[in-house]
Amino acid sequence: MPLLVMKFGGTSVADLGRIRNAAEKVKREVERGYDVIVIVSAMSGKTNELVAWVEQTSPLYDAREYDAVVSSGENVTAGLMALTLQEMDVPARSWQGWQVPINTTSAHASARFVSIPRDNIEAKFREGFRVAVVAGFQGLSPEGRITPLGRGGSDTTAVAFAAAFGAERCDIYTDVDGVYTTDPRIAKKARKLDRIAFEEMLELASLGAKVLQTRSVELAMRYKVRLRVLSSFEDSDENSGTLVCDEEDIMESKVVSGVAHSRDEAKMTLLKVADRPGIAAAIFGPLADAGVNVDMIIQNISEAGFTDMTFSCPTNQVKRAEKAIADARAAGAFAFGELVVDDDVAKVSVVGIGMRSHAGVAATMFRALARENINIKVITTSEIKISVLIDRKYMELAVQALHDAFELDKAA
Amino acid sequence: MPLLVMKFGGTSVADLGRIRNAAEKVKREVERGYDVIVIVSAMSGKTNELVAWVEQTSPLYDAREYDAVVSSGENVTAGLMALTLQEMDVPARSWQGWQVPINTTSAHASARFVSIPRDNIEAKFREGFRVAVVAGFQGLSPEGRITPLGRGGSDTTAVAFAAAFGAERCDIYTDVDGVYTTDPRIAKKARKLDRIAFEEMLELASLGAKVLQTRSVELAMRYKVRLRVLSSFEDSDENSGTLVCDEEDIMESKVVSGVAHSRDEAKMTLLKVADRPGIAAAIFGPLADAGVNVDMIIQNISEAGFTDMTFSCPTNQVKRAEKAIADARAAGAFAFGELVVDDDVAKVSVVGIGMRSHAGVAATMFRALARENINIKVITTSEIKISVLIDRKYMELAVQALHDAFELDKAA
Repeated sequence: MPLLVMKFGGTSVADLGRIRNAAEKVKREVERGYDVIVIVSAMSGKTNELVAWVEQTSPLYDAREYDAVVSSGENVTAGLMALTLQEMDVPARSWQGWQVPINTTSAHASARFVSIPRDNIEAKFREGFRVAVVAGFQGLSPEGRITPLGRGGSDTTAVAFAAAFGAERCDIYTDVDGVYTTDPRIAKKARKLDRIAFEEMLELASLGAKVLQTRSVELAMRYKVRLRVLSSFEDSDENSGTLVCDEEDIMESKVVSGVAHSRDEAKMTLLKVADRPGIAAAIFGPLADAGVNVDMIIQNISEAGFTDMTFSCPTNQVKRAEKAIADARAAGAFAFGELVVDDDVAKVSVVGIGMRSHAGVAATMFRALARENINIKVITTSEIKISVLIDRKYMELAVQALHDAFELDKAA
Repeated sequence: MPLLVMKFGGTSVADLGRIRNAAEKVKREVERGYDVIVIVSAMSGKTNELVAWVEQTSPLYDAREYDAVVSSGENVTAGLMALTLQEMDVPARSWQGWQVPINTTSAHASARFVSIPRDNIEAKFREGFRVAVVAGFQGLSPEGRITPLGRGGSDTTAVAFAAAFGAERCDIYTDVDGVYTTDPRIAKKARKLDRIAFEEMLELASLGAKVLQTRSVELAMRYKVRLRVLSSFEDSDENSGTLVCDEEDIMESKVVSGVAHSRDEAKMTLLKVADRPGIAAAIFGPLADAGVNVDMIIQNISEAGFTDMTFSCPTNQVKRAEKAIADARAAGAFAFGELVVDDDVAKVSVVGIGMRSHAGVAATMFRALARENINIKVITTSEIKISVLIDRKYMELAVQALHDAFELDKAA
């Protein structure tokens, strides 16, 4: 029988009524002839309660115990979902991570999948079960302990199951009805996309469009899993939501697919750094060790053997970055004239696979911003994306201007 | 190193503060030189929340899913207790049933222990861990699913661990400070017992003294596990609480150890039943099939080929018993003249190992009740117990009179 993976996040299973609503969507797919693997998160609020208990008990907690406690949230939802389906006469059972088993590495902060053997679940499908309800987020380490796949890791669990079982599609049910050309709260004219390429989704996910986790999109791209994002709270059919898929599955595509933004960015510049081989490693090594998520890096041209090095990071990591730089300087790793911090910037990006074959996207972008008198502070580009840092107060204006300039409100 | 099993029930781990209080008791035993296996229940209230969700989802729920959901409560406590101990610098880790593993049969309503292999936990003790915190109540079936040991089954889990690991003692921490000669709410002069024999405790437990579960006492008796009941909310030393132990470990013992009572009893009499071989089976077979817990059974002497058959059961099972009898009569299983129901009785019992070698206990009991003008409706006796049914309104009076008559307020 063809197989579908369906994933429901915490707000989609927040109480018994919503679990029932989700179960109805599952039943509909069973009636259409699919065997279904359902991945569920904890009922929303439950994970926070458990995390608070752990943190109150032990500020520097043992990650293995954290995982043992917090994973119980998903187990509860999985059992309740299986019971709800049984009540609807759909043969279903729940699976905890260790029962499948979902084999992972032992890193408790960020365990990775090693394997998901199909045998146990497939044996149950052969016995006549139509639905396997799997507790999201959790795996089994080689030492026999519960490992998490990072908070919110149930998107990734869903994609991994879809890859392992060769699912026809992986449907991610959430509280929005798809992926938009930009944030609808900022640009009224934002339009829902019917399809988007994996690469574009990856750029959008990591740029701050919080619909899907970056890692789940990476995994889907690697294993060619057709990934669909759609709403738990609306009726849906085969054409609902947004399909994240291979570039070739998108017939007609615009040059730019979306405008992303990220509000809380900071720009830091080291003035007068010696321009010598290895200087970038000397600076960014200590920052990485300190856990600073450096995003953009720009090195200006050199003058008289010195250069300026600029990078961006989230605002709340500025203090940590300053300390790492001061420590490295004191240890003699590198010298510089001055550190200039601007923690009042935002990042705006345009993303589109079509850029690869179309010149002039950067020019259009810069012209649109210039028309609004928005000064660009930093520019970086990749094959399918152009990002700029601007003053934070202009962020909404820039998003709207770019959305208009690339006519994203109109379908391709 | 000598090993101790300590068990904390739901009220003893109701919140983070109480978990900390329990952890302090564990730490004290570690400091005394013990390795400790701690068995924990769910935080009180949590199990009820989970059970309510299951019952609202599915009135006739799948027991395997019920178990998957409800067992999460103990897992949370186990993790939090391990973290609390770690915070106190006691090397501890949590164990879920499947990690030990606690192997059980597959009966999901009432799974029984098959084996508790010591290897995994002992390997951790050898690595330097001093405490294993085990989630109570749950085991692993041969099919790899979570099995429960009955609600409140963590007493039994504790005793099974003590037996499997050859523990020096199994301490059950609860909200009372020991076993009393009778219910202190009824008889002000009730006295805490320092020691009580397994057999006596079994009679008291099944007669309505709710301190320990019957099955845990049975198991302790079979494997000679020294079982201690004591309070979570008081400071304790080696002499606290009540030790339930082998008869030989009790030096001096009174003829009668305690007076038990059970308030909600009903007496049912079938008048004029044919006195023929197999008549008892014909009557009590259908009652057992209907799930009626028949307690006392008395058959009076036969007259002209007919007899009267009296039995007792809990008041709330009278309706069910009446229906089972009517159905069996209609099916021609047996005939009788009339069914007389008295659902306004209570049971009072005196229990003591010393009865075996002392005559006159029954006489003393009946005389004490007669002095208070309490009419005895039914009498049954076993080797170490005499029970009577009396009018419910006299129950408290009877308990006090018997407590005085056997001088239970004075130590042996």
